[in-house]
Amino acid sequence: MKVNNNDAESSAVDVSVDCVVFGFDDRKLKVLLIEQRNPDRSTRMKVQTALPGDLLIKDESLDDAAKRVLKELTSLEGIYLKQFFTFGDPARVKGLKDQEWLRVFRNHPERRVITVGYYSLVNMEDYKPRPSSFAGKARWVDVYEIPSLAFDHNAILSTAIDALRHELLADNIGFELLPEKFTLSQLQHLYEIILDRKLDKRNFRKNVLKNEHLTPLAEKQKGVLHKPAQLYQFKRKK
Amino acid sequence: MKVNNNDAESSAVDVSVDCVVFGFDDRKLKVLLIEQRNPDRSTRMKVQTALPGDLLIKDESLDDAAKRVLKELTSLEGIYLKQFFTFGDPARVKGLKDQEWLRVFRNHPERRVITVGYYSLVNMEDYKPRPSSFAGKARWVDVYEIPSLAFDHNAILSTAIDALRHELLADNIGFELLPEKFTLSQLQHLYEIILDRKLDKRNFRKNVLKNEHLTPLAEKQKGVLHKPAQLYQFKRKK
Repeated sequence: MKVNNNDAESSAVDVSVDCVVFGFDDRKLKVLLIEQRNPDRSTRMKVQTALPGDLLIKDESLDDAAKRVLKELTSLEGIYLKQFFTFGDPARVKGLKDQEWLRVFRNHPERRVITVGYYSLVNMEDYKPRPSSFAGKARWVDVYEIPSLAFDHNAILSTAIDALRHELLADNIGFELLPEKFTLSQLQHLYEIILDRKLDKRNFRKNVLKNEHLTPLAEKQKGVLHKPAQLYQFKRKK
Repeated sequence: MKVNNNDAESSAVDVSVDCVVFGFDDRKLKVLLIEQRNPDRSTRMKVQTALPGDLLIKDESLDDAAKRVLKELTSLEGIYLKQFFTFGDPARVKGLKDQEWLRVFRNHPERRVITVGYYSLVNMEDYKPRPSSFAGKARWVDVYEIPSLAFDHNAILSTAIDALRHELLADNIGFELLPEKFTLSQLQHLYEIILDRKLDKRNFRKNVLKNEHLTPLAEKQKGVLHKPAQLYQFKRKK
């Protein structure tokens, strides 16, 4: 840290957190969005769809802020949220529509807001969001059918998807979304949905079997009409 | 973004950037640090060692701030800096020594500072830092012999090392630091220095040869006394 003379030029900014909660339901990759209603009836925008997010509170760490905001807006808690990127475009909340929106709710709508993005990947069946009165609705939306979101939230979501794919390829986080015992077809299907492309079956199997944490079981699928497939288990990394 | 009633509680903060520039010189992994002198002779701390960093300027993007600050403090430019983490501990500049230091230089030393970390990995021979008058000295220091740094800079450096190792294992960034044609021993040596542990030669070769971007050449080492080793080249990912 250089501690010199930029104080005059640097102006205090607001800092917020935004949460990108991905949900997987065996067929689709979705993201949790909230819908907010503008109580000021004179504005053109009556409703906006957004990622759950809010300003940091005094003396609150970034991680704590992410947990609090997600809980306040959607009632979800106990979710591991991972910081993935900080968005600092000086114009990120300066659009006309964004400013019209912020003027209703903020004391300093003109102030620059830098936001720290967090993401999470959960099994949708385990988490039922319940919106706060402020977040009129909280709902899961297919990541490939996202409407126009508030502020730069479309860009934040897109960066989060990249981070998720990167983690999937590097760290196999996807295993957490599968049942305890799964087939290689189930695993490939999960990868295809998150990566949004078809994978070659032979190459996928060759690569995935190199993973030392994937253990074949002495069991096969039961109750299927086709030839039962080999089951696998995932030994968690320490 | 929830735009409601936290304005009262949320207080504006300062945002800074800190740059962790790693240098590799064929034998050691180093990091670029600056030494700053305190002009106020009444303070106990006369000198502090720190990562190059400073406050954001009004209307400046985070990436631009990182480039500007690094250039201003060390004269280095044209370096690819990658954002890796944002540090928001509410107490991160509140230590007694840190406050004593900040009171000399800042208009609002008591203000919370959230800092966005950037890192880079360069070939030390290509970059000769030249400190600004403010940064009394800029020097390369072995990452395994780091002194006590200002603020939370030791923790920032440690997080940057983790990010670097993660990237090395996921994306093979290390190849950029090798000569165009290299032996597998050179490659293993680079990995060992960055990961800070001995690697098993046979396992390392087995794993690294799976990398489809590593191409064996129809050439061997020249001018060596021992049996010349096979040379390899790295085809860059698109």
